[in-house]
Amino acid sequence: MKTVRPEIDAPIGVFDSGVGGLTVIRSLLSLLPNEKFIYVGDTARVPYGTKSPETVRRYALEIAGFLLKSQVKMVVAACNTVSALAMDKLRLFLPVSVLGVIEPGARAALAASKHRRVGVIGTEATVRSRAYQQAINRLDDSIKVFSSPCPLFVPLVEEGWLGHAVTKQVAAQYLSPLLAKKIDTLVLGCTHYPLLKPVIQRVAGPGVELIDSADETAKAVRSRLEQDGLLLPPSRKRGGAEFFSSDDPAKFMFLGQKFLGSALRGVERIQLEGV
Amino acid sequence: MKTVRPEIDAPIGVFDSGVGGLTVIRSLLSLLPNEKFIYVGDTARVPYGTKSPETVRRYALEIAGFLLKSQVKMVVAACNTVSALAMDKLRLFLPVSVLGVIEPGARAALAASKHRRVGVIGTEATVRSRAYQQAINRLDDSIKVFSSPCPLFVPLVEEGWLGHAVTKQVAAQYLSPLLAKKIDTLVLGCTHYPLLKPVIQRVAGPGVELIDSADETAKAVRSRLEQDGLLLPPSRKRGGAEFFSSDDPAKFMFLGQKFLGSALRGVERIQLEGV
Repeated sequence: MKTVRPEIDAPIGVFDSGVGGLTVIRSLLSLLPNEKFIYVGDTARVPYGTKSPETVRRYALEIAGFLLKSQVKMVVAACNTVSALAMDKLRLFLPVSVLGVIEPGARAALAASKHRRVGVIGTEATVRSRAYQQAINRLDDSIKVFSSPCPLFVPLVEEGWLGHAVTKQVAAQYLSPLLAKKIDTLVLGCTHYPLLKPVIQRVAGPGVELIDSADETAKAVRSRLEQDGLLLPPSRKRGGAEFFSSDDPAKFMFLGQKFLGSALRGVERIQLEGV
Repeated sequence: MKTVRPEIDAPIGVFDSGVGGLTVIRSLLSLLPNEKFIYVGDTARVPYGTKSPETVRRYALEIAGFLLKSQVKMVVAACNTVSALAMDKLRLFLPVSVLGVIEPGARAALAASKHRRVGVIGTEATVRSRAYQQAINRLDDSIKVFSSPCPLFVPLVEEGWLGHAVTKQVAAQYLSPLLAKKIDTLVLGCTHYPLLKPVIQRVAGPGVELIDSADETAKAVRSRLEQDGLLLPPSRKRGGAEFFSSDDPAKFMFLGQKFLGSALRGVERIQLEGV
């Protein structure tokens, strides 16, 4: 694949299996207000976290193919499952820089943990991949990392039961093996989980710091753009985001506003298969 | 599309978004032990119940295309969401008889309800389609039908929390508006729900009869085969089922055995997109 130097005023491609990655877009829009973003949510095939590595890789490459047609200058996998399973493949095939959410999350966990005991929660696929353990232990191999999959959290968030008694009970069950290990830091390793921060914090107690990789990822995007000479100078005009979903835009807008923190307008439907 | 008369000893194609339809295969294998079945579970794109009608129709047609290549003599949509949204399209495009699970379930509900007050639970897409109401009221328009989506039931079943306290609480919340309507019959309008029968029955109480369409669907398949002159005579040798999944066969086998009620062997992986 030939490497063409991207244009500095090209958009940045961001994608997720669905609406969760909008928490990353939110941080990006706030940190880099003059950059343009193109966001793709693969709502026709969501969730990814229960699927096999090969299937997740195939879907990620199809979305990346769509983003490349829009001449993006960088691709951000704003999905923990994709970041855990498909970074090598994406970096191999894409002619632009590719960032995920796991390395930024790992760096933030390392900075936060005083007693060097970190918990990680995520989808089945993310936890099984051990991607967070590896990323954290690459930075510091003396850190103990404990992880637990939380498959009911995504459906609970999508059902809107953010403060429901059931959600608290589910959180208590999922977190108990991690709390028994005396973790002092907990990585929210799925972009849906920040919406459960209050209930997770209540269950985990005040001694556990929650790490949401959205802000860290936005910082990593900025420094990579700088390194690549692709960061727009601050004097330029305001950017913004365009949104695409592979299933019904109305549902994407309805669910998505909770993650973005503001109303979503102008979502366009696309077909990703065979791109 | 030209109509070629299918062979009597051709297999019957059965499909679902994932493993849930194996409850229908179980009833079919028991009622029609000498027929051959081909089962497809679209585990790479599961679930369907949260997706839009157009997307569900597209997926159903892709699977039907795969089944036709195996020269099936009939297609059974063993998925409530597909049966609710895609029957017209499937019947229009397929040159063989197509059966769903909703009409058999509606007939069984009608037969069971003494006070003519029927509840229906299912996925968001199934409930929104009003397919059960329409099917029941086509048979008898004096029956009152009340319905409620239960989006957390499928993830709870897949998590294996069949008898968990959380599942009972979720069931109590989902069923309460239906119980307030004094239903005496409750249609389990999703092939995952039969695994929750004990907890649903406990919440609904002994005065509510639960309807699982798997057995009724098997009976409907037999009578349609008879009508079509395609039912194998009982003297012939034993049939059985072949299984295909669009994602990891290992996970399909692991989850699937709970639905089939016995071990699953020889699952083959297929790619459905663009079939």
